[in-house]
Amino acid sequence: MGTGRNTGRNTGTGRETAQGTHAPGSRHRTLATVCLPGALEEKLRAASGAGFDGVELFEPDLLGCALAPEHVRAFCGALGLAVDLYQPLGDFDSRDPARFADNLRRATAKSELTARLGCDTLLVCSSTAPDAAEETDRIAEQLHQLAARAADSGLRVAYEALAWGRHVNTWQRAWEIVRAAGHPALGLCLDSFHALTSRTGDTSGIRHIDPERLFFVQLADAPRPEEGLRRWSRHHRLLPGQGELDVAGFLAEADAAGYRGPLSLEVFNDVFRQGSGVQLARDAMRSLLAVGDAAYVGHPGRAADAGEGPQRGGRTVPAAPEPVGHGCTVLAVDDRAGPRAAAVLRALGFSHTAAHRTEPLRLFEQGAARVLLDGSGGGAAPHTAAGARLVACELTSAAPEAALARARALLAPVAAAGRPEDAGEPASVVAPGGLLVRFRSTADAERLPDGFVPAEEGPVPSAGLTRTDHLGFALPFDRFDAAVLFWRTVPGLVPQPPTEAATPAGPLTGRVLAAPGRGPAGVRLALQSIRRGPGAGSAAPYGFQRVAFASDDIFATAVALRRAGAPVLPVPVNHHDDLDARLGLPPALSSALRDHAVLYERDAAGAYFRLCTPALGGRVSLEVVQRVGEYRGCGAAQDPVVTAALLRYGALV
Amino acid sequence: MGTGRNTGRNTGTGRETAQGTHAPGSRHRTLATVCLPGALEEKLRAASGAGFDGVELFEPDLLGCALAPEHVRAFCGALGLAVDLYQPLGDFDSRDPARFADNLRRATAKSELTARLGCDTLLVCSSTAPDAAEETDRIAEQLHQLAARAADSGLRVAYEALAWGRHVNTWQRAWEIVRAAGHPALGLCLDSFHALTSRTGDTSGIRHIDPERLFFVQLADAPRPEEGLRRWSRHHRLLPGQGELDVAGFLAEADAAGYRGPLSLEVFNDVFRQGSGVQLARDAMRSLLAVGDAAYVGHPGRAADAGEGPQRGGRTVPAAPEPVGHGCTVLAVDDRAGPRAAAVLRALGFSHTAAHRTEPLRLFEQGAARVLLDGSGGGAAPHTAAGARLVACELTSAAPEAALARARALLAPVAAAGRPEDAGEPASVVAPGGLLVRFRSTADAERLPDGFVPAEEGPVPSAGLTRTDHLGFALPFDRFDAAVLFWRTVPGLVPQPPTEAATPAGPLTGRVLAAPGRGPAGVRLALQSIRRGPGAGSAAPYGFQRVAFASDDIFATAVALRRAGAPVLPVPVNHHDDLDARLGLPPALSSALRDHAVLYERDAAGAYFRLCTPALGGRVSLEVVQRVGEYRGCGAAQDPVVTAALLRYGALV
Repeated sequence: MGTGRNTGRNTGTGRETAQGTHAPGSRHRTLATVCLPGALEEKLRAASGAGFDGVELFEPDLLGCALAPEHVRAFCGALGLAVDLYQPLGDFDSRDPARFADNLRRATAKSELTARLGCDTLLVCSSTAPDAAEETDRIAEQLHQLAARAADSGLRVAYEALAWGRHVNTWQRAWEIVRAAGHPALGLCLDSFHALTSRTGDTSGIRHIDPERLFFVQLADAPRPEEGLRRWSRHHRLLPGQGELDVAGFLAEADAAGYRGPLSLEVFNDVFRQGSGVQLARDAMRSLLAVGDAAYVGHPGRAADAGEGPQRGGRTVPAAPEPVGHGCTVLAVDDRAGPRAAAVLRALGFSHTAAHRTEPLRLFEQGAARVLLDGSGGGAAPHTAAGARLVACELTSAAPEAALARARALLAPVAAAGRPEDAGEPASVVAPGGLLVRFRSTADAERLPDGFVPAEEGPVPSAGLTRTDHLGFALPFDRFDAAVLFWRTVPGLVPQPPTEAATPAGPLTGRVLAAPGRGPAGVRLALQSIRRGPGAGSAAPYGFQRVAFASDDIFATAVALRRAGAPVLPVPVNHHDDLDARLGLPPALSSALRDHAVLYERDAAGAYFRLCTPALGGRVSLEVVQRVGEYRGCGAAQDPVVTAALLRYGALV
Repeated sequence: MGTGRNTGRNTGTGRETAQGTHAPGSRHRTLATVCLPGALEEKLRAASGAGFDGVELFEPDLLGCALAPEHVRAFCGALGLAVDLYQPLGDFDSRDPARFADNLRRATAKSELTARLGCDTLLVCSSTAPDAAEETDRIAEQLHQLAARAADSGLRVAYEALAWGRHVNTWQRAWEIVRAAGHPALGLCLDSFHALTSRTGDTSGIRHIDPERLFFVQLADAPRPEEGLRRWSRHHRLLPGQGELDVAGFLAEADAAGYRGPLSLEVFNDVFRQGSGVQLARDAMRSLLAVGDAAYVGHPGRAADAGEGPQRGGRTVPAAPEPVGHGCTVLAVDDRAGPRAAAVLRALGFSHTAAHRTEPLRLFEQGAARVLLDGSGGGAAPHTAAGARLVACELTSAAPEAALARARALLAPVAAAGRPEDAGEPASVVAPGGLLVRFRSTADAERLPDGFVPAEEGPVPSAGLTRTDHLGFALPFDRFDAAVLFWRTVPGLVPQPPTEAATPAGPLTGRVLAAPGRGPAGVRLALQSIRRGPGAGSAAPYGFQRVAFASDDIFATAVALRRAGAPVLPVPVNHHDDLDARLGLPPALSSALRDHAVLYERDAAGAYFRLCTPALGGRVSLEVVQRVGEYRGCGAAQDPVVTAALLRYGALV
């Protein structure tokens, strides 16, 4: 029973773990897996090697791991590590009874998982959600219910005040709630970061806490946080269009005031100061031209207030025609990756429809999706990479010439011609990171390019893929913000808020940009940047690339893929267990997801299904996705799981 | 006259710059030099190349530059750039009349400088100082005085509200003050970052500002700043001992409560997640052992409250004996750098006192300062570097064995023996970054090491250097915090708050650690980390290293150096002009500093003089410093100037 054991631990009279009894007086030392780089197995080895007694297991580390919870427990045991804490529960308490009931169900499922890990303590942090409960008694009562269930599984619950909790943001308040709950399996978790950076910052009363109820202590230091905004301002500013402030609205106000003086960029950013000045200055000019344009376009009323209209330089950049869809995607492949890529495309239901007369260029089509495998190698720098690489893409619109004119006006470099497939085609521009972008007329999208002849191969049966849903690719960390600016300003895609995740390859930042006005089916890009950790591997220097195709019925597609022998990336059971625990999926759906290695995500607008291949040439994964309702993301919550799996299963070639 | 010109600019009827008249309606586009990497000259070229019309000149960029203001102006003119803004003035207004008078004197000097730059606008930001004026009328009156003086020099003053200004932190308040001041040469500067992140975040009234009084508009974007603390917590936590929170005090409170459960490190840090897990886990264990020790030592009363005392594991690490002084410093030198280093040491007044019997090891001494030149090369990894490199140091204390025992208990790796000079010496440990550290008995510090015999050379005249004042060295950015932890916990040095600066080599973080209790003359280290920019150069992969020697009369030493032909690093005139403007130095002092290329810094506790050599082997600068009063830093404010000069004048070999 939880409580008895807890008492034993807290009075320091020795504690039994999987690894035996600690001597009285010695401290049990624990390292959170979140501190460490790499895959979970590497983290555990490093913690054990440095002499730690246990770990705090961070949920994303488990979800990305191929080991079932029992195997994680056994792995830890073999390394002499206890699993001292599992922390899966955020936003537990709620003013909304229905939501609380769902949270309790979720918590119960996570309690079972915690027990399977051989861990006796579940961490619950104070809620940050808008529906967080406010009154001490209500929160205490809800935590009491959780503690009672946890105690039934031999567990205890440690409650921690986040410094940014909505209503509970000091340890004093959390302790008040723990006392009010009055359940022996409910205690306090203290974290030095939260205690020392909370509103009060006062730790002097901690000594009066009943040690029987102080379940866990976490230690972390930090630079002085008082000057948050100042530090933000001095290190993390971005060029207009790269961040989330309404700079165009601000500028429109100044314009409306009649201001005609200099527009000056003042952007303190450490990453910029490590890069190329020439490149940064060009990005800066692009930003300034585009923000002036956006201020005029987005707020013509305000600009008109000044009584001058467009002729006073308001519109200095041609308008961006709306991108309608993805045209052809070009993958450069070497002699090893090329045949494998062709085989995988066929297994995905793509027919090889045309080939270049003289060059090793092969076109594959399914529905409106088009992929060109370019085996010409050795040409422009992007082609020289070994394996496979996403090197070029097309955006279709009604006015490709205007799109190119806008790109030129915004200082996008025009690609040198000379690639065999470029003959007779419109010019491409080079996006940050090196991807070539061509603007093609919608009317022209299905035309066979010059120099191509129909392939002699017969068609293969479709797997139900209808179009290219999105492209995803990683950028060097110092070009990520430049890429956001490029895609936002040149074709006029709209950025969604950035996402962040911890992956075995390093911390990952993601940002989706999508064409406005076309809903879920429009043009979409998923940019990523990984701050490289030791697990990043050498084949994918900045992370992975993906080409995602849309299906209207992912399970039917999955069956077709299985029949055709398509390689599918295995999904850790922990991902599906987590979906069940979090979302309470219907059993039929849950088992279909598991059977077909389909990842799933849901938000308030809709749902998203996703199936991946291992990485061609260690770099490019082909994906099948299905959108339900108005879901507009690209599965950012799944990216850590996918990244871990891509690293684990290595190159497909 | 400023006002007339301003009117011209703001009504958009054309503006004269050094580069001619801009067409009506076109916007004047400006880039702040602070956005760009590299030395000022590179920044200006990049801005010009991207088509900018002007720059905001950031003061540190000017101070580190070898060009006089007139030459910067001419350089800009040749590139077609106007200098649109100079921003040197912080914390201008004051409740303290004496301080305000001094600020006005400083501002007048900076106005002259602004005029010399060919710039007509001086930026003044709202004060963040404790003595900031609060009432609108008082601030307005003080700014009126400044504007009147500026107008006499043909300048205007733009006043900007920082979002973290003490009393003025919204543009609305700044605008109110500008109106109240009622001087035509005083106007408003608006910055989108400050306007959009201030308390109100409201920009909707900007359109009603009189455009004649809106002097300047700065644009910057940023990630959403609302969640500052949360973001801080998720990316910038540090191990206990690396940051500035009182984690030991927190732990002592938990101990006093009677908590005996796990101590867990939960440290979210992107840099850690990019590094080596094995190294990080070892750092983490060191941190946890040391914070437990510090909690016990620093708060024995609190721990005793728990009624158990040391025997309950309070002191698991041997105490650190206090470091008394710097012993011998070892520079590895190759065949090119070795003779040059010996010549420079002699010119600095060092005598070559002893040499190794069989190995190319030469000892130099002056007062209590000792330097060993190690030309044995080819041995351990640190020696293989070409040029010159700081590879080992000694700390003297009364109990070196205890210091070594503590280092071992804190998991410091013990260096493999095998260097010729190690024979018969105590073991060294390896600090993060690779520096070897030996703990030597104070009594033993002047003993000739085994295998050495007195040199045959006669002594050279002393230049008045008395001892080694401090060592300074740069670390890879991902080992900086680990180094702070090592030096803080192993020998027990006390870290001072970190400092930050922009240098041509990249953004620089500095942190001084000093032995407690010995005052300015004690053991001291200046750690640096440069986030590498393109100007970093290849010879100094992470930045520079320095060995600083103390003089009781730096000007006498400077005269001796000149006589001996010692190479001295030139100091830009802009540094000395800035000292005069900021500090109003007596003319005799000012001219002595200029004559001898001595840098100067002053704080509330005392003053600091500094004279540098160019970098031996492109990496190691020898310095002469003099401390006055209780000054305890190592000249962090001068580091950007010194770094720029070391880069500019290249390697001394």
